[in-house]
This record gives sequence, C-alpha cells and structure tokens, in this order.
Amino acid sequence: MTPDEINAYLDDVFPELNATRRAYLASEVGEGTAVVTCSAGPESLRPGGTVSGPTLMTLADIAAWVVVLAHVGRSALTVTTHLSIDFLRKPEPGLLYGRARLMKLGKRLAVSAVEIGDETGREPYAIASATYSIPPPDFRQR
Amino acid sequence: MTPDEINAYLDDVFPELNATRRAYLASEVGEGTAVVTCSAGPESLRPGGTVSGPTLMTLADIAAWVVVLAHVGRSALTVTTHLSIDFLRKPEPGLLYGRARLMKLGKRLAVSAVEIGDETGREPYAIASATYSIPPPDFRQR
Amino acid sequence: MTPDEINAYLDDVFPELNATRRAYLASEVGEGTAVVTCSAGPESLRPGGTVSGPTLMTLADIAAWVVVLAHVGRSALTVTTHLSIDFLRKPEPGLLYGRARLMKLGKRLAVSAVEIGDETGREPYAIASATYSIPPPDFRQR
Amino acid sequence: MTPDEINAYLDDVFPELNATRRAYLASEVGEGTAVVTCSAGPESLRPGGTVSGPTLMTLADIAAWVVVLAHVGRSALTVTTHLSIDFLRKPEPGLLYGRARLMKLGKRLAVSAVEIGDETGREPYAIASATYSIPPPDFRQR
Repeated sequence: MTPDEINAYLDDVFPELNATRRAYLASEVGEGTAVVTCSAGPESLRPGGTVSGPTLMTLADIAAWVVVLAHVGRSALTVTTHLSIDFLRKPEPGLLYGRARLMKLGKRLAVSAVEIGDETGREPYAIASATYSIPPPDFRQR
Repeated sequence: MTPDEINAYLDDVFPELNATRRAYLASEVGEGTAVVTCSAGPESLRPGGTVSGPTLMTLADIAAWVVVLAHVGRSALTVTTHLSIDFLRKPEPGLLYGRARLMKLGKRLAVSAVEIGDETGREPYAIASATYSIPPPDFRQR
Repeated sequence: MTPDEINAYLDDVFPELNATRRAYLASEVGEGTAVVTCSAGPESLRPGGTVSGPTLMTLADIAAWVVVLAHVGRSALTVTTHLSIDFLRKPEPGLLYGRARLMKLGKRLAVSAVEIGDETGREPYAIASATYSIPPPDFRQR
Repeated sequence: MTPDEINAYLDDVFPELNATRRAYLASEVGEGTAVVTCSAGPESLRPGGTVSGPTLMTLADIAAWVVVLAHVGRSALTVTTHLSIDFLRKPEPGLLYGRARLMKLGKRLAVSAVEIGDETGREPYAIASATYSIPPPDFRQR
C-alpha cells in the first residue's frame, strides 16, 4: 500500500482520528519501514509547552501499525496486543516523525520498532515497540 | 490529595484533556491506590465498536500518574519515563475503570501498576505499568 | 497439572535449569494462579549481596510460564513472545517467591502478571508481565 | 572504557557470571554503541535446540549495561530499573551478538536499545530496551 492508500484507509476505519484536522499522516513507506508524521497542536501540549505522553503513544501505535498494514494489506481487525514505550526527551511542539521498522512479520504476530523524533532523526524523543495479532486470512477485510 | 483536588489539578495542568466534556475523572484515592474512570465516547471507538488503543493507553497513563500525584502532592513536572501495556480483551463502550496501585515510591522514581476493566474489575481489558521520574524538591510546583 | 507434575515436566524439558541444585520450584497452583520459588544462591548475587537482574527475570519468566502450563497442559513449544519487568527494590538473598496470575488465556496468546517478593508478598522486588504464543493443538506435545 | 577494561570489570563485579567459561564478552565499544557476544552452550538450550529466553534476556541486560558503563565509567551501583524484550525468532545455538545503542544518557537515567542476532545483524532474534538508574556522583565506585 502507498502512503495515499494508507491515509485513505485510516480515514475510513478511524474516522474520528483526524476529523478536525489531519494530525496523523503516513508520509513514507519502504521495504520494512514506514514514517508517520504528527502535527502536535495546542491540545497535545502539557504544561511547559511540551507534547503530551498520550500524543507520543498514539503516534507510536499508528506508526507501528502502518508499517504492518503496508506489508500485510488491509486488515482492520489487526489488533495491538502489546506496546512498550520509553520517553527519552521532551519534544518541542511541531512536526513529529514516527519512524517504524517491521522487525518481524509472522503468520500470527507482527512486531514493529518505532523511534519518534524531529525531522533529523537524531536524539529521539521516544522509542517504542508494539506487537500486533494478525487475524487468520478468513477474518481479514478485503 | 482528594479526588476533587486531583480533578481540579488535572483541569489546571491539562486544560485541553477534558475541554469538551469530562472524560477522565479521578473517582477514588486510597492508601497506595487510585481509580480513574473514562467515559469512552464515539471519538474513542474503533471499527466494530470497540475502544481504541490510545484511549486505553491514555487512561493507563492518567491512572498511573494520579496514584503518584495523590501520594507525592502537586508536581506537574513529574514525567513518565516508561509505559508498558498489554491489551487483553476488546472493551465494550461505556465507563472504563483504571485501577492503579503504587508499587514503588522512591526518591527519584515511582512505579504504578494499572488494571483497566469494567465496574466489576473482573477480566481486565488491559494491564499496564508506568514509571515516573520525580523531580528534586526544588523543582516541584507548589 | 499439580506442582509435582510441573516440576517433573520442568526437569524433563529444561534438564540444565536445575541440574546442580533445584533452584526454581513450582510450589502452588490454583485457579488462575501459580507460585514458583527460587533459592538465590551465591552465583545469583551482585556486588553488595543483592540478587542479579537475570535471576529475577528468569524467575519471572518461569512463574509466568508455569501458570500458563498449569492451565493449558503440557505444551513445551509454548514460547515467550514478550516480557517486561520493572525492578522496584533490591532483594535480599534467600527464598524468592514469584507469584503469577493468568490475566488472559486465549486460543493463541496467554498473558501472565508476576510479582516477585519475599514470603510476605509485601513490597515486591519486581513486577513483570509476559506473553506466550500457544501453538495450535496439532503442534502440542502430549 | 575499552572492551578489555570492561571485561576485566565484569570479572571483578560479577565473578560468577563467567566463572566456568567466558560466556558474555564485550567485543566492541563505539560512540554510543557496544557489542557483547554470548557463546550459548548446552546449558542455555531449550527443547528443540533453541536458546533459552533467560539467556537472551541476560545478554540484553549485559549489552545494555555495557554501553552505559562504557560512557559513564565504572559505576557498579548502576541498577536496571526496567527491561522490556520482544522475542522474534528462535535463535540457533552458536555465537549470539547483542548490539546496544545508548538512546539517552541523562543525569539520573540512561536508556539503551539492544538487538540480538547473529553475526550478520539481519533478522534479529530479539529486541529489547533497558533503563538504568545512575547513582549520584558521590555513590559511584572509583
């Protein structure tokens, strides 16, 4: 799937996620990789002007899910079974990049690793891993 | 701190979190425990009518943070350093309960464990642990 | 399975684990629960006389696995897919108790939560969660 | 610190770890990186000839700790506060490589990310992250 196909699919299955303004946007998909950006607006900020933890967790989850989606195809029933995230540095408001790598794509489980940072990719704000349960072929939406 | 004080504090430091309608509400605080409820509305739903992962992660983070807050006092600079969550069952829409236990309260780190479930507390939807870095006394807001 | 059956099975499938002296021993199995003890000997100690992290991780893994095993039966191919552990306090040498609860037993995944502590169960040394992939029935050893 | 200094220090503070035969060996240290190898012998094997989970967890912990140690200097009191590991593929017996990157080095916390694989570094067996609490300067061993 291309970034455009993924974004259309995100709008389709998560209509509320980007209802008011597009916040989470798949921008690149490669061999085993994907990048999702997030424009952290005022509602994502914590005291001190930093971005909230839930915003980073949501970006990690979406980036990790997009890289799976891009490789297994439309499968809205794919569900997160685990997510672990380390918060390393306080991000500045602005465009956040969630760079996901597909570490494993098995028949039943997929595991992604994500680094969240700015456009440079240096000194990440957070690192995460997420596991997805892939439904049997009969249960996938086509 | 009492649940009312905590809710006032949440409104103060996270003004956007419950801006449209109170979603995350501290309802009980005890010795080493806290309960935060979340009324998962339509915007929290995924396809199939289940509650989104980010909604559960946000509830886990807030419940884990509230039990620390209730025991160390106002400390808005306390930051999450790690959160790990296992998604066990698909929750039904409705009131979700995040039950947090304070597993450790050290000088520099606090660790909470959270179970998210319905009002019965049986068959939890998710379990999580979160770690918070507690700032030195000089840096706390009073 | 009873604790004796589990211990015989452990000896069978992990012959080296307790080769020199029985260190990890299933001592109780209940409805959704199991207790595994570990006698942390000199080889498990770190500087300062505390028990090493790997010893605690091994106890967490075994306790989490035993509670699954006790409920699904002999299934040596069940494999850990994820383990997350928070180290809370430095344990004293002596008998460690890994108390596991079976949080989910699905067709494909099982999730256990473990608290490691002393005989009182208060002020745990560590808390952990672990996920196991359960093989399809055809692949189980009987 | 160089790999040789680190190995001497490991022998000093964890005398039992490599008592019978050197299993865990720091082999490379770079800017923000470290590699620790582990020769998984018979006692590390599970049924089917694969390497046990605790062996991989121990390698992850040591590699993650070595990269911190190499950058903060001798600090035996540095303690693991959290470790999360995803097991991706069953490793073959043989030399395992734990490649650690230092993701954050703060005043109080350090976070490492580890990939465990074979000499090629492709298709990792496991990925992990670990957090270490760094003691105040007064408490460090020199």
